[in-house]
Amino acid sequence: MSKYQHIKQTAYEANMQLPQLGLVLFTFGNVSAADRDLGVFAIKPSGVPYSQLTPEKMVIVDFDGNTIEGDLRPSSDTLTHAVLYKHWEGINGIVHTHSTYATAWAQSQRCIPIFGTTHADHLTTDIPCAPPMSDELIQGNYEYQTGFQILDHFKEKGLDPKKVEMVLVGNHAPFTWGKTAEKAVYNSAVLESVAQMAYLTEQINANAPRLKDALINKHYQRKHGPDSYYGQ
Amino acid sequence: MSKYQHIKQTAYEANMQLPQLGLVLFTFGNVSAADRDLGVFAIKPSGVPYSQLTPEKMVIVDFDGNTIEGDLRPSSDTLTHAVLYKHWEGINGIVHTHSTYATAWAQSQRCIPIFGTTHADHLTTDIPCAPPMSDELIQGNYEYQTGFQILDHFKEKGLDPKKVEMVLVGNHAPFTWGKTAEKAVYNSAVLESVAQMAYLTEQINANAPRLKDALINKHYQRKHGPDSYYGQ
Amino acid sequence: MSKYQHIKQTAYEANMQLPQLGLVLFTFGNVSAADRDLGVFAIKPSGVPYSQLTPEKMVIVDFDGNTIEGDLRPSSDTLTHAVLYKHWEGINGIVHTHSTYATAWAQSQRCIPIFGTTHADHLTTDIPCAPPMSDELIQGNYEYQTGFQILDHFKEKGLDPKKVEMVLVGNHAPFTWGKTAEKAVYNSAVLESVAQMAYLTEQINANAPRLKDALINKHYQRKHGPDSYYGQ
Amino acid sequence: MSKYQHIKQTAYEANMQLPQLGLVLFTFGNVSAADRDLGVFAIKPSGVPYSQLTPEKMVIVDFDGNTIEGDLRPSSDTLTHAVLYKHWEGINGIVHTHSTYATAWAQSQRCIPIFGTTHADHLTTDIPCAPPMSDELIQGNYEYQTGFQILDHFKEKGLDPKKVEMVLVGNHAPFTWGKTAEKAVYNSAVLESVAQMAYLTEQINANAPRLKDALINKHYQRKHGPDSYYGQ
Repeated sequence: MSKYQHIKQTAYEANMQLPQLGLVLFTFGNVSAADRDLGVFAIKPSGVPYSQLTPEKMVIVDFDGNTIEGDLRPSSDTLTHAVLYKHWEGINGIVHTHSTYATAWAQSQRCIPIFGTTHADHLTTDIPCAPPMSDELIQGNYEYQTGFQILDHFKEKGLDPKKVEMVLVGNHAPFTWGKTAEKAVYNSAVLESVAQMAYLTEQINANAPRLKDALINKHYQRKHGPDSYYGQ
Repeated sequence: MSKYQHIKQTAYEANMQLPQLGLVLFTFGNVSAADRDLGVFAIKPSGVPYSQLTPEKMVIVDFDGNTIEGDLRPSSDTLTHAVLYKHWEGINGIVHTHSTYATAWAQSQRCIPIFGTTHADHLTTDIPCAPPMSDELIQGNYEYQTGFQILDHFKEKGLDPKKVEMVLVGNHAPFTWGKTAEKAVYNSAVLESVAQMAYLTEQINANAPRLKDALINKHYQRKHGPDSYYGQ
Repeated sequence: MSKYQHIKQTAYEANMQLPQLGLVLFTFGNVSAADRDLGVFAIKPSGVPYSQLTPEKMVIVDFDGNTIEGDLRPSSDTLTHAVLYKHWEGINGIVHTHSTYATAWAQSQRCIPIFGTTHADHLTTDIPCAPPMSDELIQGNYEYQTGFQILDHFKEKGLDPKKVEMVLVGNHAPFTWGKTAEKAVYNSAVLESVAQMAYLTEQINANAPRLKDALINKHYQRKHGPDSYYGQ
Repeated sequence: MSKYQHIKQTAYEANMQLPQLGLVLFTFGNVSAADRDLGVFAIKPSGVPYSQLTPEKMVIVDFDGNTIEGDLRPSSDTLTHAVLYKHWEGINGIVHTHSTYATAWAQSQRCIPIFGTTHADHLTTDIPCAPPMSDELIQGNYEYQTGFQILDHFKEKGLDPKKVEMVLVGNHAPFTWGKTAEKAVYNSAVLESVAQMAYLTEQINANAPRLKDALINKHYQRKHGPDSYYGQ
C-alpha cells in the first residue's frame, strides 16, 4: 500500500463532497489534502468525472509541483495549490470551484461586503477579490502565478490566511483552504452561501449598511476567539 | 428514562426538519421545544451536525438559561430562546435559522412588506425587523440581550407575539416561534417563502402596492379568526 | 364503491403532482377534477398534508358548491372552482397554487408579457392579471366572488378560457385549468417556468421586446392549430 | 436489429441526460445523434415524455429531413437539426432546450458577454444571439429556416461552429452541438451555467468588465489548444 494512502483517502472524500454540496458542475473543481511531514499533497486528477473517482486515482505532488506518485495527470490547477502550501504553513487542504454565486462576484471584480453575522461567524473582513494578473504573468506559468497573485494580494491587504480562509480570483473563481481538506470544503460551501446572501442583500437594499464592528467581533470571537463558546 | 424525554423527542424531530426543508446549511440553525409545567425546554446541542443528532443529545435548559440535563453544551443561541420563553407565555417552540432569503432581508435591515395573500394567511403586518443592538449590549451578554432586543421591538411596535410569530434581527437572521416546535418550524419555512416572493415582487414592480386591508383581514380571519374555515 | 371513484382518483393523482413539480409548500395548493355528466367535481380536502392524502379523502362538490360526498371539509377555495366549472363548459380540471414566480407577478399586479416561444407554445397573449376585488366583494362571499373576478376579467379582455388556460389574481396567486386535471397541472408548471423566464428577461434587458406576432402565431399554431405537427 | 441501433442508443442516452441535468421541463427539448457514413441522424420523437422514451422510439431522419425509419413523428425541430448537420460537417450531435437562464438571454435578444474563465474554458467569444427571423421566413418553412438563420448568423459574425458550439436564437431558446451527442449535452449544461453567472455578474456590477484577451486565450488554449494540458 502507498505510504500516501491516508491523504489519498482524505482528498477523495473531500472531492466527493463538492457535487453533494452543489458546488461543481461536471469536473469544474478540485480538492487537495496535504501531509506536511511528507512534504506532499494528494489532488484530484485532471478532468476525471466525480462518478469515476477513487482514492487510488488521486495524484501525489510535492510543494514544488512535481508529481511523486500516480498514473494520471494532476488537476490543471495543481501549481496554484503547490504555491499556497509552500508559502502558507498552517493549511493542509485547498479547494477550487466555480460555484455560481462566488464566481459571479469574482467576475464582477468586487470583494464581498460583510453584511451579516453569517459572514462574521467565519471572518471579520470583506471576502477579498484579487485582481486579474498582468498579461505577462498570464502568458507565463499561469497556474503558478495564480498562486502568487493570491499571496501578493493577501500581503498587500495585510490579511492573515489563517483568519481569512477564502479568496476570489478576479474574473476567475474562488479558492478556499483550511487546516484540513474537510474544513476547506466547508469554507467553499460557506462562501457560496454568503455570496448569495450578499447579492440578495444589495438587491433588496442598494444602501445596505456594512455590519458594525461590535457585531463582527462578537460573532467571530464566539466561534474562534480564546473564550469561544460555539460547538463542543 | 429522563422525565424530559417527550420534549427531547419533539425538539429532535423539529430540528431534523430544518435540513429537509432546505432552511439550514451545516449547523446554522436550531430548534427548541418547551414544557411549561416543568419550566424547561429541550434544545439542539451547539455545532453538532444534523446527521449526528439523536433525541438523547438534546440539552435541557430552564427559562433562566441554566442547563438542567445533558452532557453537551447547548446551542450558542440558548439564552435568546430562554428570554423569549420566560416573557412570552403562549409559545412552546422556537426556531433560529440563517435561511437565505429571510437572512438577506435581515441584512438589508428592512421589514418585509405585506404584498400578498400568502403573507396575510399567516400575519396581518409587515414582518418586523428589529434594529441591531447598541455596541454596549453586544459586548455584554449578547445572546441574552438579543432576546430583549426582540421583546423591546415587539413592545415598541405594539405587536402581539401570538399573532406575529416571526422576526428578523437586523444584520443577523430570523427567529420564529409558535404554540409547538412543529409550528415554529412551519413558520420558518413560511417566512423563507414569503421573503423570496417579496424580493421578487419588488424586482418585478418597484412600486408594487401593499396588500389592501380588506384582503389582509379576509385571508387572516379565514385561517385564524373565530369563524375560520380553513383546515379540518 | 363510490360512483365518484374515478374523479377522486384523478384528483388525487393530480394533487400529488404539485409537490413533485415543486409548485407547493405545505398545503398551499389544490386541484379538482370534474365529471360534467354527473355535475360534480372532486377536490382536495382543506389543509390536509399531501403525505396524508388518499383518493378516498377527496371531497365531491356540485357546481353550486354544495358538498355531495365526503367526510372532510373541502378546500377553502372550493367556491372559486365551482364558479369556473359552472360558467366555463370546456374545462374539467382546475389548479390553484402559490408557486413562487407566478405569485410574485400576481403580487406585482402585472400581466406577464409574452417574451418568447416557450410562452407562445401555450398561449398567444400576455398572461392576464385580474385586479384585486373591491372591499365589498372581499368582505362578502370571498371565494365565490374570486371566481366572478376571473370570469369578469376574461370577459372584459375578450379572452377565451379554452385558449388562455391560466390567470393571476392580483395580490393573490395563480389559477390554471384545462380539459383534464392533468392538463391543468401541466399548465401550472408551464406558468411557473414562463413567469421565471419573464422575470429574468426583464432583469437582463429592461427594454426586452415583446415577441412578434409572426412568431406568436407560428408557435401556437404548430402546437394547437388545425395543421398542428407537434406530438404524436 | 436496425442498422441504426447504435445512434438510436446514443440519442436515447443523451436525451435522458436532459432532465437529469435540470435542462428541460416536460418535453421541452430534444437531442439528435448522427452517423455521417450512413448520412442520417436519430432524434427524439415529438412530444413523448422522457419517462416513456426507449432507444427503439428514436426516429431516423436523413440530412434533408426525410424520415428513414421509425413509427413515430420526429421532433418538431427536426428540420433545424437536418440543416445544421448538412452544412456543418464536423458535428455529430445537436441539442435544443428551453433551459431557464439561456432562454432568458435569448428572450432578451442579447449575446452573453464573456465575463470569466468558466466561459473562456469553452469558447473565446460572446455567446452569439441570432436575431429573430423575418415574418416571411417564419410563415414559410419555419424550422428549416431556423437552421439557416443560425448558419447565416455564424457566417455574418465570422464564427466557426467547431469553436463556438452554441447559439441563442432570439426570442426563442438555445441550440448546442458537438463532435458527439454527449458533448452537445455537455455544452447545453455549460451554457446554462454560464448564462446564470453572466446574469448575476451584471446584477452585482452593472459595469463588470469583459474578460481580458490574455485570460480568454490562456483558458481556451489550456483546454483546447495544441499544447492543452487539461484532462487525461
